[in-house]
Amino acid sequence: METPDKLLTAQFLQHQLQEVIKLLEKQQLEKSLLERAPTTRHELLEAVLHKQQQTRLQEKFAALHPADIAYILESLPLDQRKIAWNAINTHLDGQVLLEVSDAVRHTLISGMAAEELATVAGNLDADELADLAADLPKRAMLKILRSLNSVERSHLNAILSYPDNQVGALMDFGMIAIRDDMTLKAISSYIRKLGKLPSHTDKLFVVDPYNQVKGILPLQRLLTHAPSLHVEQVMVTDFVVFQTDQDSAEASRAFERYDLISAPVVDPDGKLQGRLCVDNIMDFIREKAAEDLLIQAGVTEEEDLFSSVWKSAKNRWGWLLVNIVTAFASTRIIGLFEDVILQLVALASLMPIVAAMGGNTGNQTSMLIIRSLALGQITPANVRRLIKKELALATLNGTLIGLLIGMLSLLLYRDLALSAVMSIAMLINMLVAVIVGLGIPLLRHKFGKDPAVGTSVILTSITDSMGFFIFLGLASLFLIAN
Amino acid sequence: METPDKLLTAQFLQHQLQEVIKLLEKQQLEKSLLERAPTTRHELLEAVLHKQQQTRLQEKFAALHPADIAYILESLPLDQRKIAWNAINTHLDGQVLLEVSDAVRHTLISGMAAEELATVAGNLDADELADLAADLPKRAMLKILRSLNSVERSHLNAILSYPDNQVGALMDFGMIAIRDDMTLKAISSYIRKLGKLPSHTDKLFVVDPYNQVKGILPLQRLLTHAPSLHVEQVMVTDFVVFQTDQDSAEASRAFERYDLISAPVVDPDGKLQGRLCVDNIMDFIREKAAEDLLIQAGVTEEEDLFSSVWKSAKNRWGWLLVNIVTAFASTRIIGLFEDVILQLVALASLMPIVAAMGGNTGNQTSMLIIRSLALGQITPANVRRLIKKELALATLNGTLIGLLIGMLSLLLYRDLALSAVMSIAMLINMLVAVIVGLGIPLLRHKFGKDPAVGTSVILTSITDSMGFFIFLGLASLFLIAN
Repeated sequence: METPDKLLTAQFLQHQLQEVIKLLEKQQLEKSLLERAPTTRHELLEAVLHKQQQTRLQEKFAALHPADIAYILESLPLDQRKIAWNAINTHLDGQVLLEVSDAVRHTLISGMAAEELATVAGNLDADELADLAADLPKRAMLKILRSLNSVERSHLNAILSYPDNQVGALMDFGMIAIRDDMTLKAISSYIRKLGKLPSHTDKLFVVDPYNQVKGILPLQRLLTHAPSLHVEQVMVTDFVVFQTDQDSAEASRAFERYDLISAPVVDPDGKLQGRLCVDNIMDFIREKAAEDLLIQAGVTEEEDLFSSVWKSAKNRWGWLLVNIVTAFASTRIIGLFEDVILQLVALASLMPIVAAMGGNTGNQTSMLIIRSLALGQITPANVRRLIKKELALATLNGTLIGLLIGMLSLLLYRDLALSAVMSIAMLINMLVAVIVGLGIPLLRHKFGKDPAVGTSVILTSITDSMGFFIFLGLASLFLIAN
Repeated sequence: METPDKLLTAQFLQHQLQEVIKLLEKQQLEKSLLERAPTTRHELLEAVLHKQQQTRLQEKFAALHPADIAYILESLPLDQRKIAWNAINTHLDGQVLLEVSDAVRHTLISGMAAEELATVAGNLDADELADLAADLPKRAMLKILRSLNSVERSHLNAILSYPDNQVGALMDFGMIAIRDDMTLKAISSYIRKLGKLPSHTDKLFVVDPYNQVKGILPLQRLLTHAPSLHVEQVMVTDFVVFQTDQDSAEASRAFERYDLISAPVVDPDGKLQGRLCVDNIMDFIREKAAEDLLIQAGVTEEEDLFSSVWKSAKNRWGWLLVNIVTAFASTRIIGLFEDVILQLVALASLMPIVAAMGGNTGNQTSMLIIRSLALGQITPANVRRLIKKELALATLNGTLIGLLIGMLSLLLYRDLALSAVMSIAMLINMLVAVIVGLGIPLLRHKFGKDPAVGTSVILTSITDSMGFFIFLGLASLFLIAN
């Protein structure tokens, strides 16, 4: 799909969205007016008007890039989205389905028949089909599988056989493989005969008779070297290859590090299996970043802005329920000290500070560790120095902030012993926070789990509970006459 | 810089890191042994041994890609990092400086003389120099400016004149501009004469005599069309152009949406100013994602893993101090109700739950709004529907979770009135949380500010304070005999 518009700004997109909404609202208004009007020609008139608006919508969408249509659909409420979806030309439907978010895709697919979906899928490549496969109903998928030829079917099966987080699931098959005994001239005329290169082709892959990758031929070299030379003389033999079972996050870092546009993907025997391109890598990076942010905020997956209230509610319950459990746990700790609070009620006012500051400190530490783990910067060789540094930092910050908070509470309550307990509790809880903030991600990583998931929730529940326990415990030891 | 290794995995990188550390530790060990040894040939021997190790280190680094060297430097503690940095060949220094994180760059540059920096910078392009400019000392920058020719200097000045968040600051000058009356054959021989294309060249830019961009010629078309054709007949006239003053985040979305590799950048008159490439866009996306995550965790900027404790401490104080202020504010609200707590001490145990659940709900809402704003999906046309939906959701979740929490506290305290107050306070605070979680990002966005910055801190402080106030206020009205 070629690029769309000469000058492209967010204003342009928002303008397109506004116009689509205007067309849709006009259509809905006319419909409701007609329904109320006591005319006999009602149905005929309605049909004509409806047709007119539909044509205008169709023309609007026909001029847009599938990614822009996807943006408009995502920004429309459910009822208008359905009408707009019907106005999109079927041959664009597949590309649009690929571009919309998972949540919105569900709303679009749920209204389509299996036959319709099979037709739509007919325009897609195997790697694109694989992206949709998880969201398609079984019946549609069977129909699609039957319509594929054997090469396409084996491509589709290949991609689907890899887990989501492996390179094999991200690859496509738009590679051009050549032999090293051809001349550049022969390659050029071969390309001219093809008439078109797959998108993101910046290099050709040089393979031997066993389909093992021997080198790459960048188009740049094809263009700058004498046509009489052989591929063997011009190809690059020092290049980046990915394995089908390699971690996608690792591949995405390699793309960034070496500024790649495309790279060959091989199986454990070194045989060419497919191609990894920067556009898929960019999508992967963006999705991962969104996921990380949403997890921090306690949302399980990306939401359709206009999904039903019920669906959104379910998406948010998971973490809220976890939080209820942890909140009640820390409540039980306060419960242990209720008689202490009765003797010195200022403790009730001050205890949330100890808990909250611990949580903040721990989150700072854990987030930096999670980032460094993601970048592969933490190794057995430097982890001990890192732990030492963070502990030193927590001692420094705990002392300073403990003193500051102690002084503030002295101003409020004019009770030196209370302030001292506050300062010491603050320092201890900040040390606890840093130990937990280091420990959870490092241990999760050691056991092969994503260090980001759940860290913040577990950490906060520990710093809350420990904050209450340390502060109220110290208070009951030193401030209360037993 | 060509790509480096045939098979490239995280294991490979970690292995390189281990080897460098081993070399460095050997060097440090030998040095300390020699210092203790009472030999007269001490200095000579030390010099020889040092030389040996240094050579081995140099050979190691010479075989690595600058991005990989940057990774190793980032993973080394300060003392070892300095030794390693000295072992890197000067002609690689510039590229390595570009690849390391800002924090680590500071530690490397701080040890270098102005002359040395000027030499290092001599190997860099104007757009690369611009990336370093902010971190270079003034004296070095003046030296560098003097060593540039007038074209380079004007390029550098052009980039530096744009704020960080605009396309102009991200562009480079590696574009090839051609005229539309040339034949493809002439273009091909022009390229062959050049001998080398700038990296990421997937298209040539077609300009008129006034340097205005008329079209693009993808290399693909150059390769697939007859050499006798003129550029005019083959060029694409429907393409994406960016303006120098356009928002970088918008440009990065366009790159993703239209799967671009490179695109022309023009000034307001449509004149070609530079080129935007996918590698810079990827760096931009990754940096923005990291920033968003760290902001959520209350860290001001990315930290060098091994920066001094003092530097790290300062990086984390900002948000901790803000949190002290907000924590004391909510404390003052509890203080108002100390006599109520004395009459019913269970309130002290239960109040953190109301506050915490409010914070969680608000954060879920605000994060989804921030995401949608970043994707440009929220428009004046749909914002009202969105607000309605979130309020409906909060009412549903508030009722269900309020009831659940009420039942749990009934189990704990066997006090029906207390549980009822708990449920109602929970519902009201969740509504407050959603209103604040919608309001802060939407208002910040409306006034042109980044909706993500500070939202979580302000939100949590409001849901805490309001949670305590609503719960204790309702309790004093309905549970306490005045």
